[in-house]
Amino acid sequence: MERNIIKIGLIGLGTVGSGVFKCLQGTDIKVVKAAVRDVSKPRNIENLDQSILTQDPYEIVNDPEIQIVAELIGGINPAFDLIKTAIKNGKHIVTANKELLAKHGEELFNLAEEHNRVILYEAAIAGGIPIIMPVKTILAGNKINKIEAILNGTTNYILTKMDMQGASYDDVLKEAQTLGYAEADPTGDVEGFDAAYKITTLATIAFGKRVKIENVYREGITKIKAKDMKAANELGYKIKLIASAYMNEEGKADVRVHPMLVSKKSTLAHIDYVTNAVSLSGHPVGDITLSGPGAGEFPTASSVIGDILAIASEINTTDYLLPMMRCHHGENAQMIDIADTCNKYYISINAKNNKGVIGKIGTICAENNISLASIMQKCVSEDNTADITVITELCLEKNLQNAIKLIEQDGNKVESLIRVQERGSNGFTR
Amino acid sequence: MERNIIKIGLIGLGTVGSGVFKCLQGTDIKVVKAAVRDVSKPRNIENLDQSILTQDPYEIVNDPEIQIVAELIGGINPAFDLIKTAIKNGKHIVTANKELLAKHGEELFNLAEEHNRVILYEAAIAGGIPIIMPVKTILAGNKINKIEAILNGTTNYILTKMDMQGASYDDVLKEAQTLGYAEADPTGDVEGFDAAYKITTLATIAFGKRVKIENVYREGITKIKAKDMKAANELGYKIKLIASAYMNEEGKADVRVHPMLVSKKSTLAHIDYVTNAVSLSGHPVGDITLSGPGAGEFPTASSVIGDILAIASEINTTDYLLPMMRCHHGENAQMIDIADTCNKYYISINAKNNKGVIGKIGTICAENNISLASIMQKCVSEDNTADITVITELCLEKNLQNAIKLIEQDGNKVESLIRVQERGSNGFTR
Repeated sequence: MERNIIKIGLIGLGTVGSGVFKCLQGTDIKVVKAAVRDVSKPRNIENLDQSILTQDPYEIVNDPEIQIVAELIGGINPAFDLIKTAIKNGKHIVTANKELLAKHGEELFNLAEEHNRVILYEAAIAGGIPIIMPVKTILAGNKINKIEAILNGTTNYILTKMDMQGASYDDVLKEAQTLGYAEADPTGDVEGFDAAYKITTLATIAFGKRVKIENVYREGITKIKAKDMKAANELGYKIKLIASAYMNEEGKADVRVHPMLVSKKSTLAHIDYVTNAVSLSGHPVGDITLSGPGAGEFPTASSVIGDILAIASEINTTDYLLPMMRCHHGENAQMIDIADTCNKYYISINAKNNKGVIGKIGTICAENNISLASIMQKCVSEDNTADITVITELCLEKNLQNAIKLIEQDGNKVESLIRVQERGSNGFTR
Repeated sequence: MERNIIKIGLIGLGTVGSGVFKCLQGTDIKVVKAAVRDVSKPRNIENLDQSILTQDPYEIVNDPEIQIVAELIGGINPAFDLIKTAIKNGKHIVTANKELLAKHGEELFNLAEEHNRVILYEAAIAGGIPIIMPVKTILAGNKINKIEAILNGTTNYILTKMDMQGASYDDVLKEAQTLGYAEADPTGDVEGFDAAYKITTLATIAFGKRVKIENVYREGITKIKAKDMKAANELGYKIKLIASAYMNEEGKADVRVHPMLVSKKSTLAHIDYVTNAVSLSGHPVGDITLSGPGAGEFPTASSVIGDILAIASEINTTDYLLPMMRCHHGENAQMIDIADTCNKYYISINAKNNKGVIGKIGTICAENNISLASIMQKCVSEDNTADITVITELCLEKNLQNAIKLIEQDGNKVESLIRVQERGSNGFTR
C-alpha cells in the first residue's frame, strides 16, 4: 500500500549515512534522495540508484515528497540552515549532530515545536547506546541528579592504551592516528569538545532544563602522564575522561568534562578502548549504567534508524506526534561555577627535596581547609628533587587552586592535578 | 484542567505498589482506587486517603472512571482474570507480572490488540533497567541474535557471596534468607524459574517471535560448589546464573537459564550482588549492556511509572495508541533442543586415582567428538581419589552427555558440569 511507504532524505552518505541506507534497504522506509559532496565518487553500496544522489542538500529540505530528513554531515554550516529550512517545510528531523544541538539546540527545538515537528537525536550522544529515548520515555518519572559518562571513544582508547602499555600520551596518540581511531587534528576529541557537546545535550534532557555549552567546564587528556596512570592504578583507580552532570538539591547544575580517577570498583573503570558508557542516578530508579559502541557506521545507524522508525510509526496516525519524545526545556539551568564545586583531588608534585617540604605542603593545605587522605613521597631522583603524590578529601575547588598557587610559589612544580570520583557527593557544593 | 488528569487503579499496594503510589503523589496521574488484601493494615504512606482502598480488585477493573490498571500482585490467579476483565472493560494495563506474561502472554496480548489497548511491562524484566522499551523503540531497526543476562538478584547475590567468601551454597543461602535477599522457600529464584519467566518474554520481544516457557531449558544454582567457584577463578572466569537467548541464521531460537562460567573480561562477570544486567548483540547496533537494580520498591516503581507515563502521554491525543509499544509476535519461534546445541563445558570429576584415568577420560571424549581445551589433576586426597578439572572446546550437548555417562560408568563421579561462555558461537548448532 503506497500510504505505508515513508519517504526520507539523507543529508550525507558517508560512514553513518551509508550504514543507514544499507539497513533501510527492503523496508517500508524509502530513501528517495541523498545529498553528497561528489555524486561521481564510487560508493560501497549495492544496488544504489545513482539518480537519487544530489550535490545540493537544499533539494532534500525543499522536496515536498520527503517527510523525514536525516542530517548526517555534522558541523554548524550548512547543517543549521538546512535543518531550519526542513522544519519550516514541515519535515521531521533525525540528526547525529552533537555540535549543532549543543550550540543551537534551543532555537531548533523551539522552531520544531512551533511547526509541530520533532527533532530526534539518539545517534548524537553515545552512538548506538540507547540513552536519549530511555531518559525521555521509560525513565521519565525519575528525578535524575547525577550522570557520569564516557562519551568519547578516541580519548578512551588512548587512555586504555596508556594504562595497558605504560606508554606516553604522544606515543599512543600517534598509534591511534595510524589506526584511524584519532583524527589528524585530534583537538575536538582530546581537548574534550566532543564530550562537552554530548553532555550538554544529555544534561539538558535529563534535568529538563537548558544547559548552555559555554557554562560547561572542559579539560582534555593531553596532560595525563604515564606516571599518573601508574600512580592511579596503585591507589585503586583508573583514569578516564568523564563527562559529568550533577543537579544539587537547590536545583543548581554542575556540568563538566575532565579526566577523573575512577574507582576500579565502579563500572566505568572497566569500559575500555572505544566503548562508551553512561551511568546515571535518579529517584526512584537508583543507579543504572548503559554501555556499548559510541561510534561507527553500524552502531550510529542503529540509533538513526530507531529515531526514523519512531517517527514513521506515528506519522500517519496522529497530528500530535510523539509527545514523550518532544523537548520541554524552556527554562535555563542555574549553574554552579567550577570554582564553587567540591571535589577530591589527585595531585602530583615535583618538590625540592629538603626536609620541610611535606610539612609545608601539609600546612598550606590545612590553611586552605583541605584535608589530606594520603600523601606519599615516592622517589628521589638524581637532581635532588622528590615526587610527591597527594590525595585530598573533599574540598572546594577555589581553595584547592589557591593552595596549588602557594605550593608552586614555594618553588615546587605541580605536574598533575586530576579530580577523583567521589560517589554520592562529587560536584555538590557543601 | 480536569481533562489532563489520568485516573489509574493499583492492584496491590505492597512494596512496588507503595513505591508507585508515593512517586505519583502530586502529579497529573491520580490513583483513584487501590486494591489491597487487608484495608485495615497500617501502611507506610503519608496522606493516604483510606477511602480509595478496597479489598475487591474487581472494583478496580470494573470501574468505568479508571483508564489504566497497574497490576502489581504477581502470580497467575487472580491476576490473569483481573487483567482480562480490565482489557475487556477498555483499560490499558501496566504489569510487573513476569510469570503471567511468560505463561499467558500470547492470550493477553491478542486480547489487548482486539480491544485496541496496550499492555506494558518494563518492570517485569530486570526491574529498573530500561530494556523492553528500548528494544521496542530505539533498537527496533535491529536484528537481535544474542542476549545474555543476569535477571535474578537473589541468585546473583548468593553466587557473589560464594565467590567472595569461598562459602558453600547452603551457608550463603541461609545468610541471604536472614537478610531478606532470599525467600523462606527460595525455589522460584534458586532453581531459575524467575529468570526463565523473564528471558521468555524478553526473547519474545527481541526476536519478534513467540517463545514458549515450556521450551526454555532451565537449571538452577543449588549444585554449584565452593570448589567450582575457586576453579573458575583460577581459569579466568566467574560463575553466574545466565539467562540467555540466541537466534541462529536459520531463524531457530535457543533460550535457556543455567549457571555459566563467564570470562572476567566480559561485563557480566563484574555485575555483583543483587544488580541485574542485560547484554545484547544485534545488527546494526553491535554489543550493548544495560545494568542496574533488578528489583526493589523504587527501581521497579520507576519502570511501572515510565509505562504509565507512556500511556498517559498519548491517551488523550490519538485513537491508535503507541504503535511502537505494541506486541507483534503471532508466529511461534522455532526452537533448538538443548541436546542439539553447541557449548563449551567445565567438568569437575572425582576419579579413581589409578594411572590410566586421565587417558581414559581423554579417549571417551575423543570418541564422542569432544576436544579438550585443558585437563588438570588438581589434588589427591586421602581416599586415593583425584579431582580432575576439564574444560572442553565447543561440542554438542548430546555428545557431552553421552561422554559423561561413559565416564561415570567407569566408576568416576562427575561432580559438576557447567557450561562456559563462548563469545559469538554459544548456542548455535554447528
